[in-house]
Amino acid sequence: MRRTIPRWAAWASRWSAKPTLPIAGYARMYSVAPVRHETFGSVTPALLHKFASVLSVPQSSLLSTIPSDAKIWNTVDASELDGFNNDWMGKYKGHSICVVRPKSTEEVSNIMRICYENNIAVVPQGGNTGLVGGGVPVHDEVVLNLSSMNKIRSFDAVSGTLVCDAGAVLETLDNEVAQYGYMMPLDLGAKGSCHIGGNVATNAGGLRFLRYGSLHGTVLGLEVVLPDGRILPGLRTLRKDNTGLDLKQLFIGSEGSLGIITGVAIATPRRPNANNVAVFGVNSFEAVQKTFQMVRRHCSEILSAFEFLDHQSFDVVQTYSSMNLRDPFESRHPMYVLIETSGSNQEHDDAKLQALLEDLLESGVITDGVLAQDETQVKALWSLREGVPEALGHYGKVYKYDISMPIEKMYELVETLRARMVAKKLMPAPQEPGRVKAVCGYGHVGDGNLHINIVADAYDTEIEAAIEPFIYEWIQNVDGSISAEHGLGLMKAEKIGFSKDALSIQIMTDIKRVFDPKGLMNPYKYLPCT
Amino acid sequence: MRRTIPRWAAWASRWSAKPTLPIAGYARMYSVAPVRHETFGSVTPALLHKFASVLSVPQSSLLSTIPSDAKIWNTVDASELDGFNNDWMGKYKGHSICVVRPKSTEEVSNIMRICYENNIAVVPQGGNTGLVGGGVPVHDEVVLNLSSMNKIRSFDAVSGTLVCDAGAVLETLDNEVAQYGYMMPLDLGAKGSCHIGGNVATNAGGLRFLRYGSLHGTVLGLEVVLPDGRILPGLRTLRKDNTGLDLKQLFIGSEGSLGIITGVAIATPRRPNANNVAVFGVNSFEAVQKTFQMVRRHCSEILSAFEFLDHQSFDVVQTYSSMNLRDPFESRHPMYVLIETSGSNQEHDDAKLQALLEDLLESGVITDGVLAQDETQVKALWSLREGVPEALGHYGKVYKYDISMPIEKMYELVETLRARMVAKKLMPAPQEPGRVKAVCGYGHVGDGNLHINIVADAYDTEIEAAIEPFIYEWIQNVDGSISAEHGLGLMKAEKIGFSKDALSIQIMTDIKRVFDPKGLMNPYKYLPCT
Repeated sequence: MRRTIPRWAAWASRWSAKPTLPIAGYARMYSVAPVRHETFGSVTPALLHKFASVLSVPQSSLLSTIPSDAKIWNTVDASELDGFNNDWMGKYKGHSICVVRPKSTEEVSNIMRICYENNIAVVPQGGNTGLVGGGVPVHDEVVLNLSSMNKIRSFDAVSGTLVCDAGAVLETLDNEVAQYGYMMPLDLGAKGSCHIGGNVATNAGGLRFLRYGSLHGTVLGLEVVLPDGRILPGLRTLRKDNTGLDLKQLFIGSEGSLGIITGVAIATPRRPNANNVAVFGVNSFEAVQKTFQMVRRHCSEILSAFEFLDHQSFDVVQTYSSMNLRDPFESRHPMYVLIETSGSNQEHDDAKLQALLEDLLESGVITDGVLAQDETQVKALWSLREGVPEALGHYGKVYKYDISMPIEKMYELVETLRARMVAKKLMPAPQEPGRVKAVCGYGHVGDGNLHINIVADAYDTEIEAAIEPFIYEWIQNVDGSISAEHGLGLMKAEKIGFSKDALSIQIMTDIKRVFDPKGLMNPYKYLPCT
Repeated sequence: MRRTIPRWAAWASRWSAKPTLPIAGYARMYSVAPVRHETFGSVTPALLHKFASVLSVPQSSLLSTIPSDAKIWNTVDASELDGFNNDWMGKYKGHSICVVRPKSTEEVSNIMRICYENNIAVVPQGGNTGLVGGGVPVHDEVVLNLSSMNKIRSFDAVSGTLVCDAGAVLETLDNEVAQYGYMMPLDLGAKGSCHIGGNVATNAGGLRFLRYGSLHGTVLGLEVVLPDGRILPGLRTLRKDNTGLDLKQLFIGSEGSLGIITGVAIATPRRPNANNVAVFGVNSFEAVQKTFQMVRRHCSEILSAFEFLDHQSFDVVQTYSSMNLRDPFESRHPMYVLIETSGSNQEHDDAKLQALLEDLLESGVITDGVLAQDETQVKALWSLREGVPEALGHYGKVYKYDISMPIEKMYELVETLRARMVAKKLMPAPQEPGRVKAVCGYGHVGDGNLHINIVADAYDTEIEAAIEPFIYEWIQNVDGSISAEHGLGLMKAEKIGFSKDALSIQIMTDIKRVFDPKGLMNPYKYLPCT
């Protein structure tokens, strides 16, 4: 694979540098923490001794601020738990005094059994790369971090089936299977840090979704430790198995609310030999949709991404990206589309793309287009799209929304919000200074998934009140989703009603009770009642 | 799409002719019916009046052998309900005296509410094309047949999203979306009769699975009527929606045990412009696996089928098929592979296939190969594979098994069974007459799914005892599935333990109770305890 854009690199460096980017200010927006459940037990020296008794190396696997009399566990300062208590954006801050990093499924099982017996609430934690506060504690829940379970258990080079620990890092797995000519069926900005178990638990979408589909289709089996410590042994590698309810599907996207995923079996597709990237300038969102249809017709089986950004996003990425990006066009366009193809034969893919470009230009659906000629240009074009979130962070304080809805409705919401900001005197005419600087739309339009980012000079209750609940109600009215790929976590647990009906929420709660009758798993999140 | 093999035609004619084919004899093998649940109510005139009161046209929607005083419902002879009581193979025979064919979701809802209030057990029924007795009553359950709900609700030609009633026939839907350049993401022999709702309820696999994946990935939303009549409104068309547990996944493959699917939203892929079919002769199952790897490498994104048959299957289809098939090779081979490609550009696909064929022949992985030159040859080659089940039926009495397991283990089971039949003196040396005539292996090897058929001169308890539980235990030992795509139904409800652990079965039962606390939905099937 030629394209090796360091999607995560920029973020990773910010992470390690304890970023002071505006994004940290988010915490203010969601600062009212739910009240701690009275029924939950607390971490005590006695509990830590019990934990230590079931861990092979408690000196490194068990961290707590509670002093250990005989160095049985690793006694740490509270600040040493920051990386486990706080999310990477600094938006959510938990208060756990105990982190467990088990080395095996049996250790997870034993820890969970002890927690269950002692009514201890637990937060399963992967790479802690989430955006909705789902992977960090709210109060003093025990953090069960999977990073010490990161082995590949098996890989079948005939079928492309991978079986691995839940704590394996996505990019590491991708590199491993690459040796055999395969690739992971999902790709995210966070690939260098996120765990496959976290990907599954949050039903991660990302850049390859359009081509390789949902994890509901590619995950073949899961090993899960239930809240009471029992191990659900579902680590099958069968592509077809119609023997009873497909329980693994429940855990995909359950955000740690039902149990702890400890092992993942997943189907990996063939790695493509050829990659092409093109960016088009178009005049309207209607033209974006027409472009999508023509791209699907011409590229069909080789299409691997169809991304969109409006001129507001394009302007910001040009001006504020730290990557010093060059505008590949001679003039600005109202909207931009990026497409990527991935196939097994470069010559064939080039021919398909050539025919597409001619058709697009001749039909007048696009007004201009550039096609990457080499790996450097591939990276540069991808940076125009992938640099948007970082550039927005440099431009101002960002209110971020991750939505999905029928494609034809999608951009109407961006324009409606823009008009609303003007009507409320929050956003002036272009070039004039104002409290709201821009309303930007970009994202995975090929999947019906748009990121709407509202950039302001400062976080402000008036701005927030102008956006919410208006945006959620608007999405509800067009039968869209208020969280396309980021999940609910703590941020949107109480907002699920905008996307799901009361009966469905009730059934979700009933099913949660089947798995977690004591409500110990990742409490205060995901569902309103937990 | 050039290939239009009438896969279902042969079966359909047998159905309408009340077939006397040996397959009907299966009933003997599974003849011990479960005892009727005492708690279930019975259909009475009073109940029928209640049903009639909620149906818009009870004169045609409500069928019963109970006489109607004022022609309120359609009074029929018991024989007129045979098509609803008996499965198409004549293997399972129910004794319902009442069939309801609602015309809307609201009618389904009202009927279910009445059944719930009166403890009436219900069998949801689609096209009645199943193979495991899941779609017909066991005793006197009310048959709720979806055939009167067969409308397309909407189709979005930009995204390829189809929303339709559950009773729409798969082939009809495929023809509809074909007008817009799309295709259904699944294809079955039963396409001319099966309902999309039944496909979803049984998680149907079929011939396009290798390319377009599982229904767990392609189904976008479901509308379901719960056992108590409440409507679960999940008919969303979003490709991405991470707001809570993905409840629709539970219904996919639930075989009518949790509720009645009344509407389906599904993503349809682009219809290919080019199709190619080739058949290879190979020397061993190891060579089949090597062929699979090379085919995946060369054809990658255009591969749409990788099917297998052993020489026993090939001999039978050549000798006993009613289709008078021609052997495309000059000599017989130990094993055969059929591949199909589907792409957007004929020239490119031809080039890829040419390169594959040269590589396969030069490397000696295959010993011979033929490539269809026109539509007639495409059909003829497909018939070699698709004609196997029919030909086996003509050859003798068939014991059928539908299994999945790691590919490398797959053919070992066929050889083990063959050796076992010889060791037990049930199958003699080739050409000698014997009670077991052949042990044949064929199927969707690209999906890890093999059909094992044991052909005998007559059904015989000794032969059966030589196969079962041996075959199930063998599959269990290699962590395979005793039902890859056919489901459990009545046939394998008690056998689920060979493929699923006790904890998983317990959780399935608990989840069933959440939806169906009275156990009224499709009783005696799917799970051992229901």
